Amino acid sequence: MVISSPLDIFRRQLADLPKIDVTAASKAAARDAVLTKPAGALGRLEEIAVWMSGWQGRHPPTIDRPQIAIFAGNHGVCDQGVSAFPQEVTAQMVANFNAGGAAINQLAKVFEATFSVTALDLDHPTEDFTRGPAMSEADCAAMVQTGWEKVGDDADILVVGEMGIGNTTVAAALAAALFGGNGADWAGPGTGVSQQGVEKKAAVIDAGLARHADILDDPVKILQHLGGREIAAMSGAILAARHKRIPVLLDGFVVCAAAAILYKANPSALDHCLAAHVSAEPGHRNLLQNLQKDALLSLGMRLGEGSGAALALGVVKGAIATHTGMASFADAGVSGEAPPPDH
Amino acid sequence: MVISSPLDIFRRQLADLPKIDVTAASKAAARDAVLTKPAGALGRLEEIAVWMSGWQGRHPPTIDRPQIAIFAGNHGVCDQGVSAFPQEVTAQMVANFNAGGAAINQLAKVFEATFSVTALDLDHPTEDFTRGPAMSEADCAAMVQTGWEKVGDDADILVVGEMGIGNTTVAAALAAALFGGNGADWAGPGTGVSQQGVEKKAAVIDAGLARHADILDDPVKILQHLGGREIAAMSGAILAARHKRIPVLLDGFVVCAAAAILYKANPSALDHCLAAHVSAEPGHRNLLQNLQKDALLSLGMRLGEGSGAALALGVVKGAIATHTGMASFADAGVSGEAPPPDH
Repeated sequence: MVISSPLDIFRRQLADLPKIDVTAASKAAARDAVLTKPAGALGRLEEIAVWMSGWQGRHPPTIDRPQIAIFAGNHGVCDQGVSAFPQEVTAQMVANFNAGGAAINQLAKVFEATFSVTALDLDHPTEDFTRGPAMSEADCAAMVQTGWEKVGDDADILVVGEMGIGNTTVAAALAAALFGGNGADWAGPGTGVSQQGVEKKAAVIDAGLARHADILDDPVKILQHLGGREIAAMSGAILAARHKRIPVLLDGFVVCAAAAILYKANPSALDHCLAAHVSAEPGHRNLLQNLQKDALLSLGMRLGEGSGAALALGVVKGAIATHTGMASFADAGVSGEAPPPDH
Repeated sequence: MVISSPLDIFRRQLADLPKIDVTAASKAAARDAVLTKPAGALGRLEEIAVWMSGWQGRHPPTIDRPQIAIFAGNHGVCDQGVSAFPQEVTAQMVANFNAGGAAINQLAKVFEATFSVTALDLDHPTEDFTRGPAMSEADCAAMVQTGWEKVGDDADILVVGEMGIGNTTVAAALAAALFGGNGADWAGPGTGVSQQGVEKKAAVIDAGLARHADILDDPVKILQHLGGREIAAMSGAILAARHKRIPVLLDGFVVCAAAAILYKANPSALDHCLAAHVSAEPGHRNLLQNLQKDALLSLGMRLGEGSGAALALGVVKGAIATHTGMASFADAGVSGEAPPPDH
């Protein structure tokens, strides 16, 4: 096959996806059934243990090496005045990540995850998508590849996160392009713009959708034309995790926009991902519904940085610990068989 | 004052409650405002940090010594056939707790909490409340005192939990007695009884409410007449935590029934408590509404043992770590002042 576009590798990686390991998942389900608790009493923790086992491809599942990988980018669409913060804040926050001072650094410590941040050519924002494609094909493909390479081969669960002034506008544009609706359906306050600011964001998104109307049937082209570098990198990282058998916790609106590119290209592409939380950014709930994901946490968070997904590492740790550490009814000498309730 | 009932000490402890430390809470709120994130972007994590500080009475708040205290009791009302499991399971599960094989043991390890289980005279179940008061005044008071004494002076957050075959029936009877409604309004499947079993539970609760109709205006007498030993002990432990300035995470339906006794006796008695999760037991959601508590987690758990509250320790750890560890805008050299969004 002749490679006609730098993005063709990405397309091929999207078309041929590893499936869940049914044997490992079945072993987890069988063990879950004999643990010293009424059937189903641990709720979604039980589902998580089976899911982890199936996607890691082994039983018992582990959560010994969680990885948090953050990607930062700057966005030409900020020229349109869509953010409450100046673009310099992206680089300032990258420095804060590297110094260990951000929220995600503290969460990485609490849940004993490795942490990395990758700054993606912050001095050269992407093109303003109301004027042209945000990225060239080559730039977009390079970002996907960068994200792919940041995923550690030995991670047993992955959190991806982002920092990028203006990127809730980009995420909303991607969501509208992928799932329909206009700017007003998807734009929200982001890090804190006013109602007037939200209307501005919506108008900018509508301009972007009109500018790129001819490519809206192709999710990969949508990423290139309306996306951003950190979003392309996260798409690559989430896809790499699938190929490397690493389950993924999806963070908020921007991460889910990156994930949605994969989903629209291949509806099974996010089966190895759990929605960690639903954020306070209004479009996120709508996006999760389109992705058919039911969030684990709903705590009004809207920070990005992978923070909601990192917090959910605690839930997954609880799920794996109970699944692997509990005694069975037989081990513990507990009467698991119930008499009729009116006995 | 002449002590006319063994429960009068409990009544006095309920009447005179320490209040939140406004100075400590204000310090937490002030620090929260300058951390490197948009205002409010960590959602309920920010609220938790302020709440912990205010109830611990110091800033910064800590979560270095979480305590999990489990209480187990047996219930005479099991004679009415209200549970899917035989009463022997209570003692079997206590042995499982002591051997480290239960769900709560694994969660205690993950979140580095101390763990204790207290078996409350399991060989002698309380009286069947359809025939008489579940406990004597002296027995009830002794259980409250036992719960009080199990709370460590140096704990910085408390999870109470329970094990007791039949105790969702007891909890539903308490909820109906405290907040109105009949057995059918509050009875649920518990650990897994059939619809027929739920109807049986409802009828048994109605019989208990009728039997004790003359004391239903007194929350402390409701505890004594319709409660159980582990429930009285948890009421004592939650109240002790208030007096010792230890914030509490409330678990599921049975723990919240114990907490509800305190709430009805003094509406401010649960201000030092957060609802950790809403369980799959249907009455729990209703009970939380009556207690005016909004749960942190909703994961379909219905195990008891303090398991939902223990899982929420991860959320609180995340809240304290971000609050105490993040850099301020000034520290990090991040631009915290935003220009107008259309600038």
